[in-house]
Amino acid sequence: MLKPPEHQVAGHQARDGRLGPLVDGSGLFYKPLQSDDRGANELNFYTSFSSEPRIATRIRSFFPGFHGTQLLSASDGSGLHPHLVLDDLFAGLRLPSVIDLKIGSRTWFPSAPEDYFRKCLAKDRKSTSALLGFRISGLQVNDEDCRWRPSHDEVRRFNAKDVCRILRRFVSSDPASDREPNCAFASAVYGGAEGVLAQLLELKAWFEEQTLFHFYSASVLVAYDKDGSEDGRCPNRARVRLVDFAHVLDGNGVIDHNFLGGLCSLIKFISNILNDPTLSLI
Amino acid sequence: MLKPPEHQVAGHQARDGRLGPLVDGSGLFYKPLQSDDRGANELNFYTSFSSEPRIATRIRSFFPGFHGTQLLSASDGSGLHPHLVLDDLFAGLRLPSVIDLKIGSRTWFPSAPEDYFRKCLAKDRKSTSALLGFRISGLQVNDEDCRWRPSHDEVRRFNAKDVCRILRRFVSSDPASDREPNCAFASAVYGGAEGVLAQLLELKAWFEEQTLFHFYSASVLVAYDKDGSEDGRCPNRARVRLVDFAHVLDGNGVIDHNFLGGLCSLIKFISNILNDPTLSLI
Repeated sequence: MLKPPEHQVAGHQARDGRLGPLVDGSGLFYKPLQSDDRGANELNFYTSFSSEPRIATRIRSFFPGFHGTQLLSASDGSGLHPHLVLDDLFAGLRLPSVIDLKIGSRTWFPSAPEDYFRKCLAKDRKSTSALLGFRISGLQVNDEDCRWRPSHDEVRRFNAKDVCRILRRFVSSDPASDREPNCAFASAVYGGAEGVLAQLLELKAWFEEQTLFHFYSASVLVAYDKDGSEDGRCPNRARVRLVDFAHVLDGNGVIDHNFLGGLCSLIKFISNILNDPTLSLI
Repeated sequence: MLKPPEHQVAGHQARDGRLGPLVDGSGLFYKPLQSDDRGANELNFYTSFSSEPRIATRIRSFFPGFHGTQLLSASDGSGLHPHLVLDDLFAGLRLPSVIDLKIGSRTWFPSAPEDYFRKCLAKDRKSTSALLGFRISGLQVNDEDCRWRPSHDEVRRFNAKDVCRILRRFVSSDPASDREPNCAFASAVYGGAEGVLAQLLELKAWFEEQTLFHFYSASVLVAYDKDGSEDGRCPNRARVRLVDFAHVLDGNGVIDHNFLGGLCSLIKFISNILNDPTLSLI
C-alpha cells in the first residue's frame, strides 16, 4: 500500500533502497524520523505546535496536519522504523507543480555546533540564501504533456538570476521550453484573494508577531494543480505550506527575523511578477 | 570653531589626537572620509542617494542631510583631510539620550573579502546580532542630574537580556540606577503618532519595497531630549535616523532582507515595551 511520494522535490527520497518518506495514497504522508537530534527535534516541534493554544486556525492551516508517530517498515529495508504521520500535502492533486523554497539568509542557528555551522554557512554563501534570503531546494513544473524537473545538481547551481526566472517559469505553460516564460498562470496562482501572494502575506503578518519558534532550514512549499486548467485558470487554490522542522528552536521572546526577512524577499519577487510578468528585474 | 561632538556614542572619536568627526555647533557635522574603500563607498552612497529621484521626502528625512565634502584640518593633526559635510543630528538638543543600534543579523555582505567576512561573522556571533537581528553599538542616557554612558567594553558584552533591559532603561528616569527601569518616558518617546515606533514602522514599509540599497553595518540612531521634560513628557519629537553607510551595496532588484529582518525584531522589542513597560520578555 505504501509507496514513495511521486511529487517530492527535495529532501531524502525513498528510492533505490534508501530511507525516505512514504505515502498511502489516501491522504497520509509518513516521514521517517531521522535517527540523530533532527528526528527528535522535528517530533518535538510537531508535538508542541499541535498543543500550542496561541496558534490561530488560519496559521495552523499552513502546517501539515500531524497525526502522531507510527512504526513502519522502512523504505530501505532496515526493518521497523518510527515515522511521523502527517497530511500528504499533494493529496487530491493530479498534476501538481511544486517548488520547495528554503527560507532565511542563514540556515544555521546561533547555538549550532561548529561543524554544522560551517557546513550551513558554506552552503548559504554558495547558494542564493545569503544574497536573496532564500534558495530553491527543488521543483517540478507540470503541464498537460510535459514535466520540467531539474536535477539536484542543477538546482544547487541556481544563481539569483535563475531564481528570478524560475519563479516565473513555475507559473508558465510550456515549462520545459527554454523560451522566455509566458507567466500564463501567474495571476491565477500567485494573485487573487486566495493566491500564493495573499497566503505569504498572511504568514508574514504572523512572523512579525510570533516569538514562539525560530524556523532554521525550514521551507515554504508551493503547489498548484494544472489538472483541468484552461486559459490560464486553475481549478484549485494554490497550496502554501511550511515544511521541514528538524531545526526549529524556541523563539525565547524574539521574532524569527531570519525567516521573516527571507519571506519578505520572496514576497517581493512574487509581487514583482504580478506587477509585470514580462519583466526580469535582476 | 570645530570640536568633537559631545553626544557621539559609537564609531571613531576625535579625542586624544585621533581622527574623528567634528561639529561646528551650528548644525553641521564633519565626518572624515575613511582612507580605504569605506570612505569612497560612503561618499558614493551619499552622492547617489541625494540624486536618487525614487526616494520620497518622508524617507529622506530619516537620513542625515548631505552637503558635499570639504577639506578640513583633521582632528588627529595630520593636516588637511576630506570630510563629508552632514547635518548634525543632535543640533538643538541640550540633554540628548542617544542609542546607536546596528541593524542586521549579519554585518558582512555576500561579496566581502574573506578576512573582513571572518571579522564581521565573529562579531555577529559574539554580539546579539545573530540572535536578535541587531546589536547596540553605543548609548548614553541623560537625565537632569545624571548621565549613564556604558564604556565600549561594557557595550560589547551586552547579551540579549541586557539589550531588552537597556531599551527600557533608555526611556526611564534615573537611568544611572541599577533598579528596575521605570519606563517613565516610554509612551512619550516610543509611542504616539510621531514616536519612535511610528517612525520605525515608516522605515519598515520602505524596506519592504525598496530594492535600491542594501545597508550592511548601518545603524538606526535614536535620540530624544529630556530638556524641559516633565511628568514623563518630552518637549520634542524623538529623532530616528539611519547612519553609517560605508558598506552600502547596490540592491540589484532585491530587498534588503537582512536589514528588514533586524528592523522588524527591533520593532517587536519596542512594541513589547509599549504594551507592557514592566514586563521583561527575555
